[in-house]
Amino acid sequence: MSELSVNHLLGIKYLNKKDIQLIFETADHFKEVINRSIKKVPTLRDITIANIFFENSTRTRLSFELAEKRLSADVVNFSAAQSSVKKGETLIDTVNNILSMKVDMVVMRHPNPGAGIFLSKHVKASIVNAGDGAHEHPTQALLDSFSIREKLGEVGGKNIVIVGDILHSRVALSNIFALKLQGANVKVCGPKTLIPKYITSLGVEVETDLRKALEWCDVANMLRVQNERMDISYFPSTREYTQQFGVNKQLLDSLDKQIVIMHPGPINRGVEITSDVADSDQSIILHQVENGVAIRMAVLYLLASKIK
Amino acid sequence: MSELSVNHLLGIKYLNKKDIQLIFETADHFKEVINRSIKKVPTLRDITIANIFFENSTRTRLSFELAEKRLSADVVNFSAAQSSVKKGETLIDTVNNILSMKVDMVVMRHPNPGAGIFLSKHVKASIVNAGDGAHEHPTQALLDSFSIREKLGEVGGKNIVIVGDILHSRVALSNIFALKLQGANVKVCGPKTLIPKYITSLGVEVETDLRKALEWCDVANMLRVQNERMDISYFPSTREYTQQFGVNKQLLDSLDKQIVIMHPGPINRGVEITSDVADSDQSIILHQVENGVAIRMAVLYLLASKIK
Amino acid sequence: MSELSVNHLLGIKYLNKKDIQLIFETADHFKEVINRSIKKVPTLRDITIANIFFENSTRTRLSFELAEKRLSADVVNFSAAQSSVKKGETLIDTVNNILSMKVDMVVMRHPNPGAGIFLSKHVKASIVNAGDGAHEHPTQALLDSFSIREKLGEVGGKNIVIVGDILHSRVALSNIFALKLQGANVKVCGPKTLIPKYITSLGVEVETDLRKALEWCDVANMLRVQNERMDISYFPSTREYTQQFGVNKQLLDSLDKQIVIMHPGPINRGVEITSDVADSDQSIILHQVENGVAIRMAVLYLLASKIK
Repeated sequence: MSELSVNHLLGIKYLNKKDIQLIFETADHFKEVINRSIKKVPTLRDITIANIFFENSTRTRLSFELAEKRLSADVVNFSAAQSSVKKGETLIDTVNNILSMKVDMVVMRHPNPGAGIFLSKHVKASIVNAGDGAHEHPTQALLDSFSIREKLGEVGGKNIVIVGDILHSRVALSNIFALKLQGANVKVCGPKTLIPKYITSLGVEVETDLRKALEWCDVANMLRVQNERMDISYFPSTREYTQQFGVNKQLLDSLDKQIVIMHPGPINRGVEITSDVADSDQSIILHQVENGVAIRMAVLYLLASKIK
Repeated sequence: MSELSVNHLLGIKYLNKKDIQLIFETADHFKEVINRSIKKVPTLRDITIANIFFENSTRTRLSFELAEKRLSADVVNFSAAQSSVKKGETLIDTVNNILSMKVDMVVMRHPNPGAGIFLSKHVKASIVNAGDGAHEHPTQALLDSFSIREKLGEVGGKNIVIVGDILHSRVALSNIFALKLQGANVKVCGPKTLIPKYITSLGVEVETDLRKALEWCDVANMLRVQNERMDISYFPSTREYTQQFGVNKQLLDSLDKQIVIMHPGPINRGVEITSDVADSDQSIILHQVENGVAIRMAVLYLLASKIK
Repeated sequence: MSELSVNHLLGIKYLNKKDIQLIFETADHFKEVINRSIKKVPTLRDITIANIFFENSTRTRLSFELAEKRLSADVVNFSAAQSSVKKGETLIDTVNNILSMKVDMVVMRHPNPGAGIFLSKHVKASIVNAGDGAHEHPTQALLDSFSIREKLGEVGGKNIVIVGDILHSRVALSNIFALKLQGANVKVCGPKTLIPKYITSLGVEVETDLRKALEWCDVANMLRVQNERMDISYFPSTREYTQQFGVNKQLLDSLDKQIVIMHPGPINRGVEITSDVADSDQSIILHQVENGVAIRMAVLYLLASKIK
């Protein structure tokens, strides 16, 4: 039987094309199981998973927690807000303490880029990166590609534009790695100050005119405007942003084809996209959320099968 | 087999007499099961329930969580304090996201009256209202009536007085609906400024003299003084409130009959009731808490049987 | 079959030598089960345990929660930060409310010394003290002794020094009770202002010179410097503390024997002990954490067998 080439999911950067294929086929299976209203499989009954979130993230934490529970894993949640981290403990000490209690896998969100990679070198457990600063958010990119594949049949050869603040976005970076690996054509679109210079070295084209980007693409992935994550001087006002890079129904209908609209959530309705766009038939936003659980089940299952 | 006339529990207002009867009989069964020290029944093994609390409520959340676990449902907790609500997401988006993860039922507390009703029209899941602003708190009213029925044999024909801040109380409103539906006689008693004018249109009498109210009633339901929920100008000082509307042992013993004392908790000992009243044989306060779990098991079970 | 002499674990003070022996033998069994990668035993399937934490404690709460889940107990968590305690409810009311929901055991951390003892006299449930102010932290002392026994074969006859702020430490007090009960020789070492006068009445010697203490001992239990717990005037500066009472590798290697280093965590690396000491072969700090789960499984199991 196939298995992943890695023991951790630290970033899409560390996966190969076959890994992604394997994750998708496994997620297909779990999605079918869920859709037959089988809520729980006994697959990870002997596995304990710690969800360690040094940043709040209701959506991602819930999705992982549901995936873990549907696999029958034992789950413990740890959030930094109420933790000994505040008492001056180091990251390795905190995590080693948790692992000493015989935890098999760690799902971690951390504000520092590379926190998961660092950790994977110092502790004995399988690490899943649930977002590390502006670095990577691999399960988000996997569920995004999985949702494109579900909607359009395949990812390879498709034209995808990622719109928004590319500079500070782990979603953008992980998506670029995943999409290129699968043979998609990728453009990024956003304010010049929010597009890093190195981006073209990843095989990505830059397009600052939104209309041109939309006319070119099959799929537009509209990133969330994250005011909390950016140095204010880089950035246009929200109103200016929406005027130049927001998508409304009029713009969408003026294109000569039906493009697919994606958003990683949470949506600022009226900023990145208007409500009628978010709720239109072209939007697959809620399918992304739904697929997130199946993708996370697949990732946890495949990594767990390597530690057993 | 009987079933509820509704697909959601949004308020007592939407139930009929037979619904309440069915909930009570189902709760009788679950209470008996619990008392035989059977901690868990496999009834809802395939159901996932999300507890979504936009306001803190340890007591109600714990009671629902225990009810869900005793029915073997999978439970995920979501509290607004650590959520994407803060990031500007709309209620429907937040809940739709959760539901996209294949959640079957939502137990929701929300500060806005009607939040549950609004939600039930926009999402595909069974909604249980765990308190929506000053509007309704239906499971509290059900457990209150269930506790009266347990203590006095029946609710119909009994004289019940609800004492306190009627204007801002969802507990009062849901209790009035439930008690009238079952044929009880209901009076409210409290400061005039805290009794809404429309209350008499619900078939309820107003009595501003506490002694007279107590002499008339079989049961006194002493509402909690909720300083956090009221416009300060409406309200007497806590000391004045206690002098006019608090119940102490002396007052209780001066009545020529043994009335039943109820309180939805948490008690401000020495404000609404003194400690000796709270702990007396006439108080059924802890039975209310105990019955809360059985009532919530019944409600969840009956609603789940409509979605399967 | 043997059973504990107590119905609650309120402090080591209330245990006898046979109790400790029984807890250790039971923990041996559970540790072996865990090491065979059996993650869950059905032992407490019908028991509901409430973890009530009036102070934050990630480490202890996680350890208890894992112990409870591995015994298949149903677990509900209650933290004071989001509770009705804030609304003015008394401790007994809060706990009685939780117990009315048919909870069998309460694991409680509380800032007030004696809170567990007080509670055990007023509620019907088995109480486990998870730390009550500067009073006791019995499961910590049990896991400490269990770890010494694992490392050195037995506790009786061994020389143990507890280093640090003895005055404010529940870990120190519980350890002293446990070690003396098992026949160990105990010294305490720390700033004079942080050693209470009554300590000698417990059969403990005071040594203010760290080098002499280390030369004498088989095991040094290095307490955490808890700035948050002390009246500032009692205390030397952190730098002065480290100079006089901190252990670094040079000091450790200068001794003519290999002593065992313990720490209850979380470690302030560079304050009580340096990193190379914490991570050395002489340190059993992570074994302490690991043994914590087995000890707590044993305590919960033995107390539960008395209520069934």
